[in-house]
Amino acid sequence: MGRGSNLPRVGGFNRAVVLEAIRHSADGLTRAQLGRITALAPQTVSNVTRELLDQRLIHETGVVAPGGRGRPGVALSLNPSGGFAVGIHIDPSALGIAVVNLTGEVIAETYGPLPSPEDSTAVIAHLHYEVDRLAREAEVPHDRLLGIGVAAPGPIDDDAGTVSPPLLPGWGTVPLRDLLARETGFDVVLDKDVTAVAKAHLWTGESPEPDNFFVFYIGAGAAITPVINGQVIRGTTGNAGESMHLPGDPLSTSARGRTLGTSLGERELVAHARELGLELPGEIDSWDPTVIDVGFTRLLELANRSDATALKVFQSAGRVLGMAALAVSELLDMTAIVITGPRWGAMRPLCEPELKATVAGHMLHGQPRPLTVHTSSLGERAGTVGAACLVLDRVFSPTPSTLLIDG
Amino acid sequence: MGRGSNLPRVGGFNRAVVLEAIRHSADGLTRAQLGRITALAPQTVSNVTRELLDQRLIHETGVVAPGGRGRPGVALSLNPSGGFAVGIHIDPSALGIAVVNLTGEVIAETYGPLPSPEDSTAVIAHLHYEVDRLAREAEVPHDRLLGIGVAAPGPIDDDAGTVSPPLLPGWGTVPLRDLLARETGFDVVLDKDVTAVAKAHLWTGESPEPDNFFVFYIGAGAAITPVINGQVIRGTTGNAGESMHLPGDPLSTSARGRTLGTSLGERELVAHARELGLELPGEIDSWDPTVIDVGFTRLLELANRSDATALKVFQSAGRVLGMAALAVSELLDMTAIVITGPRWGAMRPLCEPELKATVAGHMLHGQPRPLTVHTSSLGERAGTVGAACLVLDRVFSPTPSTLLIDG
Repeated sequence: MGRGSNLPRVGGFNRAVVLEAIRHSADGLTRAQLGRITALAPQTVSNVTRELLDQRLIHETGVVAPGGRGRPGVALSLNPSGGFAVGIHIDPSALGIAVVNLTGEVIAETYGPLPSPEDSTAVIAHLHYEVDRLAREAEVPHDRLLGIGVAAPGPIDDDAGTVSPPLLPGWGTVPLRDLLARETGFDVVLDKDVTAVAKAHLWTGESPEPDNFFVFYIGAGAAITPVINGQVIRGTTGNAGESMHLPGDPLSTSARGRTLGTSLGERELVAHARELGLELPGEIDSWDPTVIDVGFTRLLELANRSDATALKVFQSAGRVLGMAALAVSELLDMTAIVITGPRWGAMRPLCEPELKATVAGHMLHGQPRPLTVHTSSLGERAGTVGAACLVLDRVFSPTPSTLLIDG
Repeated sequence: MGRGSNLPRVGGFNRAVVLEAIRHSADGLTRAQLGRITALAPQTVSNVTRELLDQRLIHETGVVAPGGRGRPGVALSLNPSGGFAVGIHIDPSALGIAVVNLTGEVIAETYGPLPSPEDSTAVIAHLHYEVDRLAREAEVPHDRLLGIGVAAPGPIDDDAGTVSPPLLPGWGTVPLRDLLARETGFDVVLDKDVTAVAKAHLWTGESPEPDNFFVFYIGAGAAITPVINGQVIRGTTGNAGESMHLPGDPLSTSARGRTLGTSLGERELVAHARELGLELPGEIDSWDPTVIDVGFTRLLELANRSDATALKVFQSAGRVLGMAALAVSELLDMTAIVITGPRWGAMRPLCEPELKATVAGHMLHGQPRPLTVHTSSLGERAGTVGAACLVLDRVFSPTPSTLLIDG
């Protein structure tokens, strides 16, 4: 803080406010409707929309009959092909790349294992090849590609644009942002995977409380990212969302079960099952994603065949989710959780009854504090769409801090 | 979100930015220095400072020799008597009232038990009497009193301005904000006690990380309020800061010890001591603050005489504090805790070794995540100064959201 504001900054902000209002409308908005929504003067709306039309970010899509009073007006909608963004989701065991248009719609995508996970140089060359291929496939003009967003496993170094993913030990610390920008020639925005995933849900607005919710991401580990007043909480270094020391299963009697960090996530669920005597394939205590995957797939199979021990593991996971949800919702006074992650679709029927039982009828100091549990509809796209939103966010999303004069 | 900005809003924002810059300077600032800090144009600085001088919020305090280059300039400082605010901290067992000047300095105050705690009407009449008395004592002109801030036990209803404190069962739900405003004739700002306490620490800037930290408040219960990017997190209903479901003592074997909500706070520490066989005065399981106080005072005495069981209770509390600090700092990616509350001064030497041992050398995913533990210097003033800051915040504290046109 400390910086003032001035008219040029206000201009840029109002442009984003108008774009954002148009984005949220189903059938476009007239200039009069925009004026009512944004509280901007008619002349300002007129100037801003003319500029956006010139830049082809919006287009006119017909005449809207007024609701009640006023004259019919020309509806302004986002021009889907006005701009495009690439979103890349790098996971220790998987790679997803998507091209989205200005409305956030996916127009080309590819998902598969991460090739040569031990070699970051090879991964970057592969990303370059795939981005070019997908952009050609989607017929995206080069000058309309606004940039590349990357969702990477943490920890990240925000200033340096580096990643040091512990589950990709061959990488060490890689200056991913700058290397990819140099390789591809595009602007690159780097963020932690779970931050991008939260951004995707903010963008698609599917939370029951669209501006205040927290996202549970269950993958190799488990992360919880709060969204407060429409802003994803990134933390002081961009590494927020860690859940290691949140509470575990209240019914657990083992040391492992006492904190979330040692009881949720695919690797931890496999460890829990073994602790209960279940025999699962794969090397014990391995951090190798493919080894964890083999054990976890088998655990899911057993649970779906009603193996009592396997069921118990997922029931316990449901209680852990519920306890963490209570802890975070009380701390930050929020009422909605969105759960996502590559395996959540399969885990959900096994975990959800205990999760819902844990949060049902929640009271605090004698007053009800209801909590809504929502499953993300984004599936494996959460990471790629979120990464693309890191880029689109720079075009839309009027954060008031953009009003401040650059220091 | 959704609203745009315009020039009148920018004017109000820049006024707050200039005031805030002057407030943070030790010896005042020249207009040239203000221009450099705020990035505002010289003409804007000149206009804003003239308006502030006219309103007597700032005054000229001498000539400053330039550091290095430039001409000497007239230093502008806050005018301490340019405005005053009253801060009231209502606690089930205590009442504090302070009058502060524009620099946040306390110029009159009173602390004591809450009179007639069962009768909210009597409390409001008492507050009116005491505010008038203190304002007279401090020689505050009526037209320079900017308002009254109230820090009240939650839960609060933000929209209605009501409080429903469970430890003041005689109150039920009281429209405290409006009743006090009608009674005194002043504007009243109501917030939850721990929100005000966090605001006090944001205002005094004593956290090692002044814009990102969390405040532990230990009183009858325990609360944790995060401050992110210079904003106190109030939650969607103004009731953030609850810590019930955060983890308890990792070494505890009892059900009570497993979550923070049942293991920290004066009442819970007394219960823990009894569980360990210590005999303490006062009715078991009472919620009456004076009964809790008697047991807790005795527990402190025993610990200070090195009673092994009493020491164990505070060591366990230190571990709970440490675990909660880890959980919150990982979730929100923050590195500084500030601990406060009426008893923390007495508890600190008993708890701090275990607290520091729990957070020392903290690593996450193989990387160090240092955590600084800081004890507040505000003591019992944290609540009253924080309450007064709720009022001063409206004069200072340029939050970018003030740039938005009213909806």
